[in-house]
Amino acid sequence: MPDLAAAVTAVRESNPLVQCITNTVVQPLSANALLAIGASPAMINHEADAAQFARISDGLLINFGTASSHNFLAADAAITAARETGTPWVLDPVSYGVIDYRTTRIKQALTWQPTAIRGNASEIAALAGTGAGARGVDSTDEVEAVLEAAIQLSHALGSVVAVSGEVDAIVHAGEQVRIARVSGGSDYMPLVVGTGCSLGGVVAAYLGALPADPFTAVVAAHAHYAAAGTRAAGTSRGPGSFAVEFLDALHSVTAADITAVGVSYDTVEVTA
Amino acid sequence: MPDLAAAVTAVRESNPLVQCITNTVVQPLSANALLAIGASPAMINHEADAAQFARISDGLLINFGTASSHNFLAADAAITAARETGTPWVLDPVSYGVIDYRTTRIKQALTWQPTAIRGNASEIAALAGTGAGARGVDSTDEVEAVLEAAIQLSHALGSVVAVSGEVDAIVHAGEQVRIARVSGGSDYMPLVVGTGCSLGGVVAAYLGALPADPFTAVVAAHAHYAAAGTRAAGTSRGPGSFAVEFLDALHSVTAADITAVGVSYDTVEVTA
Amino acid sequence: MPDLAAAVTAVRESNPLVQCITNTVVQPLSANALLAIGASPAMINHEADAAQFARISDGLLINFGTASSHNFLAADAAITAARETGTPWVLDPVSYGVIDYRTTRIKQALTWQPTAIRGNASEIAALAGTGAGARGVDSTDEVEAVLEAAIQLSHALGSVVAVSGEVDAIVHAGEQVRIARVSGGSDYMPLVVGTGCSLGGVVAAYLGALPADPFTAVVAAHAHYAAAGTRAAGTSRGPGSFAVEFLDALHSVTAADITAVGVSYDTVEVTA
Repeated sequence: MPDLAAAVTAVRESNPLVQCITNTVVQPLSANALLAIGASPAMINHEADAAQFARISDGLLINFGTASSHNFLAADAAITAARETGTPWVLDPVSYGVIDYRTTRIKQALTWQPTAIRGNASEIAALAGTGAGARGVDSTDEVEAVLEAAIQLSHALGSVVAVSGEVDAIVHAGEQVRIARVSGGSDYMPLVVGTGCSLGGVVAAYLGALPADPFTAVVAAHAHYAAAGTRAAGTSRGPGSFAVEFLDALHSVTAADITAVGVSYDTVEVTA
Repeated sequence: MPDLAAAVTAVRESNPLVQCITNTVVQPLSANALLAIGASPAMINHEADAAQFARISDGLLINFGTASSHNFLAADAAITAARETGTPWVLDPVSYGVIDYRTTRIKQALTWQPTAIRGNASEIAALAGTGAGARGVDSTDEVEAVLEAAIQLSHALGSVVAVSGEVDAIVHAGEQVRIARVSGGSDYMPLVVGTGCSLGGVVAAYLGALPADPFTAVVAAHAHYAAAGTRAAGTSRGPGSFAVEFLDALHSVTAADITAVGVSYDTVEVTA
Repeated sequence: MPDLAAAVTAVRESNPLVQCITNTVVQPLSANALLAIGASPAMINHEADAAQFARISDGLLINFGTASSHNFLAADAAITAARETGTPWVLDPVSYGVIDYRTTRIKQALTWQPTAIRGNASEIAALAGTGAGARGVDSTDEVEAVLEAAIQLSHALGSVVAVSGEVDAIVHAGEQVRIARVSGGSDYMPLVVGTGCSLGGVVAAYLGALPADPFTAVVAAHAHYAAAGTRAAGTSRGPGSFAVEFLDALHSVTAADITAVGVSYDTVEVTA
């Protein structure tokens, strides 16, 4: 069984440097979430220096939510550099399947085999070619309904695939398919912009601290979010106070709190 | 008399998708405000996909606060698409009259006859050619002093024109000129960046939910803000806590709370 | 001894207009911090209008944290305009020495002799040619260890040089070298993105209100931050609530509170 407590401690002790090429809407929350969990964020997203910085980073997040041409070129360069140095990188396929230009660029990024992919059910279904895509950052498909699509995607690319929802599903298709389901969090999460996008950065931080075990890293990142979300919900009066309490909770939850999150594991035979 | 309660319910039930081409400073607050009132924000602001997304949006906001060339081109494309599909769109003329390049681009956007224009008194006066423009997002003219300018602007373009201030004025010049004045809010609002700019997105959401009655939609959006601002002020200790309480209040105020906001209506003969 | 109370009052009474060409991650906090201290922020960062706006601003901040080509050109134009009008401007050399492109552009900006430079110890050491640079916005060198480097930099450029850390050091090398050390703040500050970057904007506001005495202006800005940070730490439960309380405190601290911050002054002979 994955040792989540060790993963949490690894992040807090190694202070991984995470380069985020992400959308401007969620940059503040993403940076603050990384700081709160014990990582160091750096939003280096210009084509002139993205590759140079990727070579000194421990993890890399790519999210094209508001990408300009500079950000697209920066992503190409940073991913290439990360692959050279063996740095784990995460793709957040935000709005995949909804608008053509972004879809084209995400498809191209996919061919570079991300260490992990994190999206909502609609995006994962669309990536696997079985869904219509989400309109925005909301998800209209259910997590369980796209599990097969997530497995196919993981099998095709070798990536850990994480589907965010009321219960998150994380799948990794190797000789067998490992599946983890993470419960917790809060109904306020979809009402705060960036809770999903910032999780992509946190996944990159966990991968940076635990590069040899990407499945455990991705599960631990989701458990950390679920534990903090549950705690924050208890003291919030709405989405504004939830966002504040959530950052406090990301910082204050212990490894034991995170281990106590409801995570169930499953293994299935490879289906493709 | 406009049925504000019905407008509030329409937004919460229809969950309008609002595309915001807005400045990066206020993107997080604008997205969170839209989520809090029951809408879905999408900050799609690149020339490559802005028009495609505008065709599936219920409302569109244009605010050139930090616009790059990509954002200007995105706005042109999105406005054109919105006009083709009959999607309501809102122009926030932030800093009109202060810097030439932006002024030129706002002038061009005006010729496409926005469904609604929302600005402060200085910006509205400058738009109508009767004021000097504001230095930044602050307003140096009074709302009542620019009412005539707002009416002229509404008459010339057919737009609903909203002037934000201590008491907001919303005017719509048809065969008669309808005027609504909305009281409430808080002195903390000008101390939180984006309270005005995010209202532009909320106006677009209300227009998206109530496209057949733009005057009521714009009044209801302002009443929603006024109700939430008043509630938030009661539990705030400064501008930082006000911003948090305000998002909570946008989410928690009921249709009855919003209807209880002080709104007075007036009708005057067309003056131009 | 510098009259910090007079500086605080000057900002609150003159409401200086501060143009910020800064990174998108910290734009919201930077704008809100400026509003909270009594200044007016304007994030005018496009090459087409940056110079025109700099001519009507009271202070200018340059921070290349996420700079695009437009922002670099905007900075060149705005700095040139500020020098023509005698408007004080602040350079935040974020990540200097870590990535080549940004380092080149910061070097170029340095030749235009900023009124003040604000950075962390690693950045100041790198600027003076005596350190390796920081990886991100964190600092790995100590403030006192780079004091000599800060003095050399101030002597070479005439700039007030401020080094942020647990105890901030502000140096100004004239016929003698004046040094101020400011204590206070909170351990939460490095866990909230933009506390350092937003201080750059606040320094520009103080310089705008007190252009004749840049040393006092920079010290007062740091004392204002230290007083607010100390107050906020007392009522915070983590980095999320700290950020909220900090904005409240920036607004509520009195001139007397700010004067009560621990500031020690020193004078040394010029060493270069």
